[in-house]
Amino acid sequence: MEHRTKHQTVSLNQEGNAVEILDQTLLPNQVRILQLKTAQEIWDAIYLLKVRGAPAIGVTAALGIYILAKNLQTEDYSIFLQEFTKYKEYLESSRPTAVNLSWALNRMEAVCKKEENSTTEEIKERLKREALAIQEEDIKVCRKIGEYGLELLQPGNGILTHCNAGYLAACEYGTATAPIYLGQEKGYGFRVFADETRPLLQGARLTAYELASDGVDVTLICDNMSAMVMKKGWVDAVLVGCDRVAANGDTANKIGTSVVAMVAKHYNIPFYVCAPTATIDRSISTGEMIPVEERPSHEVTEMWYKERMAPQGIQVYNPAFDITDHQLITAIITEYGIARPPFTQSLKEIFDKKSYNQ
Amino acid sequence: MEHRTKHQTVSLNQEGNAVEILDQTLLPNQVRILQLKTAQEIWDAIYLLKVRGAPAIGVTAALGIYILAKNLQTEDYSIFLQEFTKYKEYLESSRPTAVNLSWALNRMEAVCKKEENSTTEEIKERLKREALAIQEEDIKVCRKIGEYGLELLQPGNGILTHCNAGYLAACEYGTATAPIYLGQEKGYGFRVFADETRPLLQGARLTAYELASDGVDVTLICDNMSAMVMKKGWVDAVLVGCDRVAANGDTANKIGTSVVAMVAKHYNIPFYVCAPTATIDRSISTGEMIPVEERPSHEVTEMWYKERMAPQGIQVYNPAFDITDHQLITAIITEYGIARPPFTQSLKEIFDKKSYNQ
Repeated sequence: MEHRTKHQTVSLNQEGNAVEILDQTLLPNQVRILQLKTAQEIWDAIYLLKVRGAPAIGVTAALGIYILAKNLQTEDYSIFLQEFTKYKEYLESSRPTAVNLSWALNRMEAVCKKEENSTTEEIKERLKREALAIQEEDIKVCRKIGEYGLELLQPGNGILTHCNAGYLAACEYGTATAPIYLGQEKGYGFRVFADETRPLLQGARLTAYELASDGVDVTLICDNMSAMVMKKGWVDAVLVGCDRVAANGDTANKIGTSVVAMVAKHYNIPFYVCAPTATIDRSISTGEMIPVEERPSHEVTEMWYKERMAPQGIQVYNPAFDITDHQLITAIITEYGIARPPFTQSLKEIFDKKSYNQ
Repeated sequence: MEHRTKHQTVSLNQEGNAVEILDQTLLPNQVRILQLKTAQEIWDAIYLLKVRGAPAIGVTAALGIYILAKNLQTEDYSIFLQEFTKYKEYLESSRPTAVNLSWALNRMEAVCKKEENSTTEEIKERLKREALAIQEEDIKVCRKIGEYGLELLQPGNGILTHCNAGYLAACEYGTATAPIYLGQEKGYGFRVFADETRPLLQGARLTAYELASDGVDVTLICDNMSAMVMKKGWVDAVLVGCDRVAANGDTANKIGTSVVAMVAKHYNIPFYVCAPTATIDRSISTGEMIPVEERPSHEVTEMWYKERMAPQGIQVYNPAFDITDHQLITAIITEYGIARPPFTQSLKEIFDKKSYNQ
């Protein structure tokens, strides 16, 4: 399988001595590649959102801790493990709530722990392999989502997406964008509408950027224009990513996702959630149990703006996510296949298939 | 009837020699009152959107042409009429598509034309009376809409509104805000959610400003957060203004209005359109016949921002309005009463009542 490396938001550099990332805080005005070599540089990149999106953060941490371990000068296993653990704890503190961060670092630590009879040189080699495996798995998961998603689409389709669940949030294909990129490779000629996604504008800054850079026909709209493009008949399917899916299919994703789902329902347009199984949390029965983070008001009233665009002291409500009711979702596309309602049953089948394949 | 003059966006100044307006382009960061005396100043204020909203523009033009006529030095009727007509044509050119502008100027011109046997001093007095009558009628229409609208609300209700159909767009009460202001006077304690209304942010800049200034409990949200506040149970009714209503009730209003209507329907929340009968166009049967203005892409990609927030050259679709299907509308509130579905019948009855009262 050949990967289009140009899409990799995060990778090991050619010399194998740094994590190479695309600085997302500067997009779309500047494309700057950063080489992260020190623990401080890696920590800052994650903390300051230069790299964002759960899968991309996990891969950055895995490759990062490999680079740090590689530079350890000791041949003593216990000193090596001690230094490794310090780095792990430090990197973990950069975004404590990001599940993929600690998941990836735990996988890397497990490699060290079971290799106590190997030389540190051998351990370094195995760490490299593990980090690259984490990256490779992410690419494969996204590619599978792309393949399943593409089965639901036709050449020439119009697709609407919200926020950024593209390669900038994951590796290479992204999740919601995976069917679009695979379709693009096959000459499907999709027409994509990207919601700008207030307040942080991930759609305008990131999705519009990455799709346009790849030659996809993409049109930027404000979030409140979704009804207009659907009414015009320009949208055949909605594709979105997700942050967490409950056992019944209720889906937490970027604020505004449920609005898009309601508009799509009004126009009888299928609404698809692209979800790596890692984001499906069958331990919670419904979306009611997913806590929704509220963020500071300045993101709405002054961030990005030349001057404050709302009265001083105005009350602001700024939830970062919303929950899309499972009844509004046509299908959930995972790397193990497509789940359709009733989701409690179909997601269980997806997980049975996953266990069987592992 | 006592009017709260503090609400007047447009008025004749105390000395009676200038149109006093609140410069809306500087809101919410600066509150600056302008005194318009010359034809150029009046024209600029309308053209540059320092005053906006169809009723407010009409009143500005009426008061403005009175000031200009007042300063004419001639006592010769035909010279007076000739100069008046020049001013009228000049002011009309400031925003040729605004219906209220030419409607108000035509009313003022009709006064001149039927007074050929009066002295110019008498004509000036009658022009003053006509301009103030236009303003007074607008206030009365808004107040009646407020009274009818208030019948549909309960103390303590949560109300969501989109764009600005407040006193900044009309005189004193606004349309969608009229029930809110009347309720505020009666101590109803409404809690209002104002959509910021991308791309031009009339909700953040204008609605949040005018409601907060009047002591109304208002919370600013991004347009894509409407579902979240409705899901929380915080919204009992949606109130919006309109630009044009078709005979069947289909309503053209600021982009995003139909999205709010779909979300309200999902949560079974009543959706009310506040419409002076002047905006109801029974000559068109459905909303399909209402043309939708498309505006330049820079409003979406760079206006207001510190730097461009979307890739250079990105395609943008920027419709200024959308059409809300009559099936999504619970009622249309006019100055002659409340129209409910089927609207073709109920709007006809509203107009019958209007003819009877005129």
